[in-house]
Amino acid sequence: MPQPLRSNDPAPTLAEVARRAGVSTATASRVLNRSAPVSTDVAARVERAARELAYVRLRAASARETGVVAVVVFADPAQYHADAFPVRLLSGLRRSLPGAERELAVFTVPRRSRRPPLVRYLCGGHVDGVLLVGPWGDTALVRLLHAARVPVVSLGRPPEPGTVAFVDADNLAGATDAVRRLCASGRRSVATIAGPPDTAAGADRLAGYRQVMAAVAAVRPAVAYGDFSSASGEHAMQRLLDQRPEVNAVFAASDQMAAGALRTLRRRGLRVPEDVALIGFDDAPVAARCRPGLTTVRQPVEELGSRAMELLLGNPARGESVVLPTRLVVRASG
Amino acid sequence: MPQPLRSNDPAPTLAEVARRAGVSTATASRVLNRSAPVSTDVAARVERAARELAYVRLRAASARETGVVAVVVFADPAQYHADAFPVRLLSGLRRSLPGAERELAVFTVPRRSRRPPLVRYLCGGHVDGVLLVGPWGDTALVRLLHAARVPVVSLGRPPEPGTVAFVDADNLAGATDAVRRLCASGRRSVATIAGPPDTAAGADRLAGYRQVMAAVAAVRPAVAYGDFSSASGEHAMQRLLDQRPEVNAVFAASDQMAAGALRTLRRRGLRVPEDVALIGFDDAPVAARCRPGLTTVRQPVEELGSRAMELLLGNPARGESVVLPTRLVVRASG
Repeated sequence: MPQPLRSNDPAPTLAEVARRAGVSTATASRVLNRSAPVSTDVAARVERAARELAYVRLRAASARETGVVAVVVFADPAQYHADAFPVRLLSGLRRSLPGAERELAVFTVPRRSRRPPLVRYLCGGHVDGVLLVGPWGDTALVRLLHAARVPVVSLGRPPEPGTVAFVDADNLAGATDAVRRLCASGRRSVATIAGPPDTAAGADRLAGYRQVMAAVAAVRPAVAYGDFSSASGEHAMQRLLDQRPEVNAVFAASDQMAAGALRTLRRRGLRVPEDVALIGFDDAPVAARCRPGLTTVRQPVEELGSRAMELLLGNPARGESVVLPTRLVVRASG
Repeated sequence: MPQPLRSNDPAPTLAEVARRAGVSTATASRVLNRSAPVSTDVAARVERAARELAYVRLRAASARETGVVAVVVFADPAQYHADAFPVRLLSGLRRSLPGAERELAVFTVPRRSRRPPLVRYLCGGHVDGVLLVGPWGDTALVRLLHAARVPVVSLGRPPEPGTVAFVDADNLAGATDAVRRLCASGRRSVATIAGPPDTAAGADRLAGYRQVMAAVAAVRPAVAYGDFSSASGEHAMQRLLDQRPEVNAVFAASDQMAAGALRTLRRRGLRVPEDVALIGFDDAPVAARCRPGLTTVRQPVEELGSRAMELLLGNPARGESVVLPTRLVVRASG
């Protein structure tokens, strides 16, 4: 998939094919990657547009394809567990691969790390595309990949808009739904356990909380930060209760943090939801295992993975993005 | 690291360098990879031997090195959790990498699957070496890697001896220690929850159990099989109790299976170790979390990873192997 460099003749993007065919990028991708059924006349239009733009020719010409897509996960591997977002995402990605025709090479590196040998590898024709997962830091990496004509998609909104194609959940709307529900139940001291503010998910879920707080004057806000892990949620809940004993509702930016908060609440003899209502984010397996069951914001992790792969195989322009809706899943905790 | 093919002139192996220097393969590897301090005169001897055998020249000549080692994990990714062997092993492997000079590309594929595109990739100059983890099935894969001069090491004894260099724990001796301890405590109905018999770890731990059983005529044996997972241990324990209510000691071939067995025993109102003594295998984090604490056989997972990497970077001959000792860790369960 790394395209041969041809001066003054940039490779046509999936978006251009879609525009010419008069369909959405997602539809064009479905047709060209044969990843989902599409009505015959739409498929014909997309295929004609692709032919006219030499999109197919370029795809077919890539005899240099390796059959391997790199997934670079910027995370602490010690935090790997079945509920962890990267682990769930990888399982979605694996399921989205057509047959055994492509393999995923997973590189796990520290958050925001610069790894010159890895960058050389990714740009060196050894992989057909790169998916970035987690806080990948500055834009040097994506600029180098773009320069090497290696398709790249970020899982999660990039720090600077327009720098790279991305797929993300609508974190802002999801957080807004959760916090509105807590306020609507009549709670008057609604806190949040936020994720790291230097991650898109952390920042956007906090922004959603703040938006609702700004609109509901009668409710007192309070923020404690965690790192999305269960232990950090446990500690953040302790700090919140120490500083604001009147807190009676909490929006945690991950289910893991909510599960940790639940442990602290139980230890302090506080009942959920009677004394403190609690809503998490993710709808990870742990949410259903919690007692009481955790009300949470479902993000479609598997679909995030499959849409990212679809976008990647379509050789996306850096402005392209897919933002998937979230959904409030009401259980017993809030 | 994939060596250029040169007719009638096989690349010297680490074992040959070690033999010439009169030291062990492990010591030679430590010197040449600078992975651990070694006395000055030993280091000098190894370096001279390497020079004489042109071992250094070959290593230095590999301008084709990619900086990436592939780890192919044959496992169900749905079973990934912090206690899972591949996850613990990967964390050991990452820690063993010198600086950020090499990256790990992790491929997770179904047990025993044949993946022609992956094999082409691994043999195609895209990686400097391959570590095989889990039940990788037939020997076609290793034969192709050998033919392509791509160094390969198996984590776990290969099904057929001599087919590939490997690193493993001494599963037989570890199991023997555990079962002897159960018999020595005077228990007369000692069962085992065995792993899959088509894996080296499953087969060797079962063989250890059978060896002791054959030597202790007064003890009644019983075998139930699991797949190393917690749920499978829970079910195997149910079958054992249904068929042999008199069972009063169990050796489980993994801590996960022991943790599952513990749940069944508790549900049936049986006390551990008073009614049933229980010993696991691995010394995974779950062993210390169990109540009562789980007596287990410790295998040095991190060291398995680092020794495998060491062996791989030394371009091993297919007959080379490293077998690390296990150690009984006595807690409260047996």
